[in-house]
Amino acid sequence: MKTENIITDHMTELEAKYKAIRNHSVQICAPLAIEDYVVQPIVDVSPPKWHLGHTTWFFETFLLIPYFPEYQVFDTQYNYVFNSYYETVGARVIRTDRGNLSRPSVSDIYKYRAYVDDQMQLFFKQGLHTIQAISTLLELGLNHEQQHQELLISDIKYILGHNPLFPSYRNNPAPAKSQSAANEMISFPAAVYEIGFEGKGFCFDNELGRHQVYLQEFEIATQVVTNGEYLEFIEDGGYQDFRHWHAEGWDWVKENDAHAPLYWHKIDDQWMHYTLFGLRTLDLNEALNHINYFEAAAYANWKGMRLPTEAEWEIAADKIHWGDRWEWTGSAYLPYPGFKKEAGAVGEYNGKFMINQMVLRGSSEATPTGHSRKSYRNFFHTQLQWQFTGIRLAR
Amino acid sequence: MKTENIITDHMTELEAKYKAIRNHSVQICAPLAIEDYVVQPIVDVSPPKWHLGHTTWFFETFLLIPYFPEYQVFDTQYNYVFNSYYETVGARVIRTDRGNLSRPSVSDIYKYRAYVDDQMQLFFKQGLHTIQAISTLLELGLNHEQQHQELLISDIKYILGHNPLFPSYRNNPAPAKSQSAANEMISFPAAVYEIGFEGKGFCFDNELGRHQVYLQEFEIATQVVTNGEYLEFIEDGGYQDFRHWHAEGWDWVKENDAHAPLYWHKIDDQWMHYTLFGLRTLDLNEALNHINYFEAAAYANWKGMRLPTEAEWEIAADKIHWGDRWEWTGSAYLPYPGFKKEAGAVGEYNGKFMINQMVLRGSSEATPTGHSRKSYRNFFHTQLQWQFTGIRLAR
Amino acid sequence: MKTENIITDHMTELEAKYKAIRNHSVQICAPLAIEDYVVQPIVDVSPPKWHLGHTTWFFETFLLIPYFPEYQVFDTQYNYVFNSYYETVGARVIRTDRGNLSRPSVSDIYKYRAYVDDQMQLFFKQGLHTIQAISTLLELGLNHEQQHQELLISDIKYILGHNPLFPSYRNNPAPAKSQSAANEMISFPAAVYEIGFEGKGFCFDNELGRHQVYLQEFEIATQVVTNGEYLEFIEDGGYQDFRHWHAEGWDWVKENDAHAPLYWHKIDDQWMHYTLFGLRTLDLNEALNHINYFEAAAYANWKGMRLPTEAEWEIAADKIHWGDRWEWTGSAYLPYPGFKKEAGAVGEYNGKFMINQMVLRGSSEATPTGHSRKSYRNFFHTQLQWQFTGIRLAR
Amino acid sequence: MKTENIITDHMTELEAKYKAIRNHSVQICAPLAIEDYVVQPIVDVSPPKWHLGHTTWFFETFLLIPYFPEYQVFDTQYNYVFNSYYETVGARVIRTDRGNLSRPSVSDIYKYRAYVDDQMQLFFKQGLHTIQAISTLLELGLNHEQQHQELLISDIKYILGHNPLFPSYRNNPAPAKSQSAANEMISFPAAVYEIGFEGKGFCFDNELGRHQVYLQEFEIATQVVTNGEYLEFIEDGGYQDFRHWHAEGWDWVKENDAHAPLYWHKIDDQWMHYTLFGLRTLDLNEALNHINYFEAAAYANWKGMRLPTEAEWEIAADKIHWGDRWEWTGSAYLPYPGFKKEAGAVGEYNGKFMINQMVLRGSSEATPTGHSRKSYRNFFHTQLQWQFTGIRLAR
Repeated sequence: MKTENIITDHMTELEAKYKAIRNHSVQICAPLAIEDYVVQPIVDVSPPKWHLGHTTWFFETFLLIPYFPEYQVFDTQYNYVFNSYYETVGARVIRTDRGNLSRPSVSDIYKYRAYVDDQMQLFFKQGLHTIQAISTLLELGLNHEQQHQELLISDIKYILGHNPLFPSYRNNPAPAKSQSAANEMISFPAAVYEIGFEGKGFCFDNELGRHQVYLQEFEIATQVVTNGEYLEFIEDGGYQDFRHWHAEGWDWVKENDAHAPLYWHKIDDQWMHYTLFGLRTLDLNEALNHINYFEAAAYANWKGMRLPTEAEWEIAADKIHWGDRWEWTGSAYLPYPGFKKEAGAVGEYNGKFMINQMVLRGSSEATPTGHSRKSYRNFFHTQLQWQFTGIRLAR
Repeated sequence: MKTENIITDHMTELEAKYKAIRNHSVQICAPLAIEDYVVQPIVDVSPPKWHLGHTTWFFETFLLIPYFPEYQVFDTQYNYVFNSYYETVGARVIRTDRGNLSRPSVSDIYKYRAYVDDQMQLFFKQGLHTIQAISTLLELGLNHEQQHQELLISDIKYILGHNPLFPSYRNNPAPAKSQSAANEMISFPAAVYEIGFEGKGFCFDNELGRHQVYLQEFEIATQVVTNGEYLEFIEDGGYQDFRHWHAEGWDWVKENDAHAPLYWHKIDDQWMHYTLFGLRTLDLNEALNHINYFEAAAYANWKGMRLPTEAEWEIAADKIHWGDRWEWTGSAYLPYPGFKKEAGAVGEYNGKFMINQMVLRGSSEATPTGHSRKSYRNFFHTQLQWQFTGIRLAR
Repeated sequence: MKTENIITDHMTELEAKYKAIRNHSVQICAPLAIEDYVVQPIVDVSPPKWHLGHTTWFFETFLLIPYFPEYQVFDTQYNYVFNSYYETVGARVIRTDRGNLSRPSVSDIYKYRAYVDDQMQLFFKQGLHTIQAISTLLELGLNHEQQHQELLISDIKYILGHNPLFPSYRNNPAPAKSQSAANEMISFPAAVYEIGFEGKGFCFDNELGRHQVYLQEFEIATQVVTNGEYLEFIEDGGYQDFRHWHAEGWDWVKENDAHAPLYWHKIDDQWMHYTLFGLRTLDLNEALNHINYFEAAAYANWKGMRLPTEAEWEIAADKIHWGDRWEWTGSAYLPYPGFKKEAGAVGEYNGKFMINQMVLRGSSEATPTGHSRKSYRNFFHTQLQWQFTGIRLAR
Repeated sequence: MKTENIITDHMTELEAKYKAIRNHSVQICAPLAIEDYVVQPIVDVSPPKWHLGHTTWFFETFLLIPYFPEYQVFDTQYNYVFNSYYETVGARVIRTDRGNLSRPSVSDIYKYRAYVDDQMQLFFKQGLHTIQAISTLLELGLNHEQQHQELLISDIKYILGHNPLFPSYRNNPAPAKSQSAANEMISFPAAVYEIGFEGKGFCFDNELGRHQVYLQEFEIATQVVTNGEYLEFIEDGGYQDFRHWHAEGWDWVKENDAHAPLYWHKIDDQWMHYTLFGLRTLDLNEALNHINYFEAAAYANWKGMRLPTEAEWEIAADKIHWGDRWEWTGSAYLPYPGFKKEAGAVGEYNGKFMINQMVLRGSSEATPTGHSRKSYRNFFHTQLQWQFTGIRLAR
């Protein structure tokens, strides 16, 4: 029957996807020295070996242990080490301690990955993933791993970029992504629009509940802000004038003596920035990178404009160029109307973070292929700069 | 001419209002010992004498100095002492230091008030307040003083309620406000509604820009939650079960060993709470008081409901009973569409705080008469309990 | 009999001493505004009203309650408020919270003093103080109060001297104490010497155990260092050169951006200092005041000398001019050979602090008359500046 | 000539010693996984790779660069990474950041060691070490490396012992060192004694200035305290009774919820401790290990005794059994009479730490062979437990 074929194809596809995604995490770490896998220079950054273990632990804990009867746990102590924030599944290493753990070693973690991947292959062979509830969890695990792939790149950049030797991650620099197309403001009329995930395929629970919103007339830029444009703000004394900033943003500026985006260094009177290819001259045409919400809002304020709301962004998404930077919106991260969190540990995925964070839309050069869509709701605290973040203006 | 009369009346009214409001601040402090005016037990609480000086400084700085040529500054050093957060008007005592200042003395501050009030009388006599821009500032100064009147009561309650002797503020206890009317859920259909300030009279800049919003169908309670209802949550282990809480809320519970609202004490197995009349047995029918956003959200979650958004609240306002408690909403404090902050120091009033806080709607028993309206947008950080705050459920 | 007369005289004397000392505490506070009694700008400073209550609590707790059967406790909650550090006698307000307590009010505390003083008069009338163990405790209580008299002056100076209005404590400035006599280095030969309290009269337990010490040959200055001499150190870049400082001292300099003694202010290019008479031009001939151990040691190091040990100081005491400043020594505060702490709460007086503090010798302009002797061992942590401290050189 | 031969022998010996000591550091690290070289779980612990680099940097900075003209610096950025606390030689990575640096890699650091060792061989070949000033520095460098060898073992134990997997450092457990000989108190009469380094060979500047001290009659134990003896203190409620403790010690107990020495774990009602061979049953006859000064003093106090002073210890050294544990003394770490620090960076070695630390005497099982003598003055802050520390009683 046709339906069967489709299902089978989907299942084969799922297995292939599992292999590809799991392999991609390993590829991301391939250029690292063993030492790079271990450190945690700030609380927001996790050691790369922790990401590799934690994403594996996800499949072990939520798929193999509950659904694969013959599964033998690899090491009972790993649950304590690799649980991130799931209160449902027991005690965990506090986040600030992750960088203090030299063991399990990198090689032990790769063994753990291999072991779980082998078991997952048996799991696939037995067709367990054809059960609806399981395939849903599997999709979640794969999307979870893709999220950690982006975190891996951000964290690796932070680890290497805050080392006084400024080592490169990659040796062959790709040409910097520069903004070629003109940046224009395009208009949308006031109306009731619809936002939220629609269609088939995977999405996170926080995107669900497609719903109507009323938007006032607005204009939005087709391109994100460039380094050169942001430099004008700096040179106009942007970091010295409290009037552009939120009160908490201005406190952040003063406490951190902030005067430029993360990774920018003025050396011998020239602006340089650390990139995955090492320290390089700042490219003025490249999309601005690594600014926090306070900086994004201050810049927009200085321009006499504002950040778009997440609804405006989603409505405009098909007509603007996006995908290079996660774009700070002016929307707080809150539940959509009718939001329901799932029962059990996976219900801790998104809902409990819906406070005191702002929504980012789009995706970035660090986002794995196939892991972006216009309804995607990313979120971070307002002071964080270490993600690949940028600014799009609206008014 | 008729218009003239109206204006004159309005002006006389403004002068009378000035006297009444200024006098009310003094009345609030009348029961205090000198010592009570001085202390600052936590950073969010200001010493009562600071409130009395700061509200006076507002009129001196924004009205008398710029608009009253013959005005002689009372004491040039007071600007440093009584500036709260206006970066535009120079250096200031940092907030955590307010409780370290024994001088100016309470009596000096009352002299300062009398001096400024005398000068304001001359100011009124000369009719300066008939100039539009000035009367706007005057209205702002009076509303500002009313906000500090509510803070005075919250802060006095904190100062006395955290003293091991539990002194009373007032001696003749008013009967506790109890919920008599039945609490029902009333429904509103999905539609485009309008919110924001309309009509004449004063409002803050953050209420301006009346605008359309689309609301899904919703239900909202006609009454706020009582002590008795909240006690059920406590007795059901609400403070011990992470599943009800935001992640940051759960951190707050653990760090503070939280197990009940502020001012609740279990003594000899009986629930007591500190009130402005001293320590008293908890009244189960009274409206719940002094909970933070995390507690409000956890309670709603436990009930299988949620907090209303600020738009839902405003739409429903005419059909629900409100005014006893500031009610936490599920809306982040963000600018309304088209929000513009004013030029100069008064522009620092609201806009720069529009991040990482939640909106509260309504007003409380501590709000001065005439200082509430349904479009009013109050806002506090999510961990704060010391205001007169409560919970209204929605779904 | 003769002996009886002597005892009687001693007892009358003790009662007279009680009255005089108790009254002196009140005299010290006479110039204060009520507000000045309440604040605690840093943890080391206690509110004056706390000192008045705590010294009274000492007599209530250690004399009246255990030894005066008819005594009725003034207020059972005061033990919680006025216990300083005696673990033996129950829970206490943590030190950083003293400045958050507006009650008991100043007037309540004066009532408490009057009540306890009245009861003590009955106590004396009944001759209870003629019992040896009791007269010992009484002497301890009086010396304890004298220690708090010095703390009162230091704390009042800090409270007023850190107020932006710089109020005076006294109105009629006494002429500043200037160094008139020449400062010479006098020598002592190497020998076995004896130190520790000897003779009759009161001393603290930490002075007891007169014992032999071997001292190498040493020289010691007859005078303490003046402001003018210390200014040379400042002008020679003393606060900018790590080589003069202990590692912890240099950390202290950098963390606090230290560049001069406490209370020194350079205003319009002139050195001023805050005194109990207000802000005044620095007198170069006056004894240096308000430096911590790190500064004392760095200065001595810069001079190519060192601080005397406490044994050297005591041996030289009869031949040097002392009494204006507490003088930092190079000796750590440790028990004398054979030191034994007393049983019960009074045993907590000195012994438990014998770690991580340095000994100061002498006495200061803030020490009450009759409360100094050459065997007195004062002690403070190395970073503290708020006492009346100075430097004497040795080599 | 005879003298020449002696010198030559000494010099050959020095070269041999250099090789042996440098090689020993490498041997200590041989059992480590690469990951173990990188982490810094607390500020007092340094990453093993940092120790390997820092000890090498010492020879490069203080010998090769100033005295070996043809020397080419290995990497100019290493000075920034491997300077520990020498202000004289420029900026350095702040101590808490050492564990955030994944680079230089372990293999790079071994290359650095090999490079510097090769250069030192040339240095020896040219006979530069026969110059007196240079051989003195060389001896200092070697003793410095030996100190870091002990730190390496302490730090490795901390890194592995605080890992939830409790990995072993060594696989073949040596039999635990148990106290076999009887523990007796031996007496010394009151007299003038002499302490301080005497004889030939190397010593640190803080041991110099042999001098007379007067000691009262004292008794001292021939053995250190065992685990079993300390367990009695625990079982007697030692950690629950403030009376045994210094005030700062009692604060430490409460803040850290201390209830046993570092590395002790009560598992299934049995006392275990982590050793370099993994988690093992507590041996009651073994010398107590890993207690801080507060614990040592509290134990002695509970026993009705005290810790010996450093002078008592040194006088008694030939008659007591020592060498298993660094023994806390009751002496503060202060300069000996006539102490002079050397000019230049090496003068920062000891003198600037002579404040707020206590002296430890003896040596431990972690001390390298040949690196102990009875005049050795070790020193640590009073709260630190991670060294191999124990207790000897005196009275």
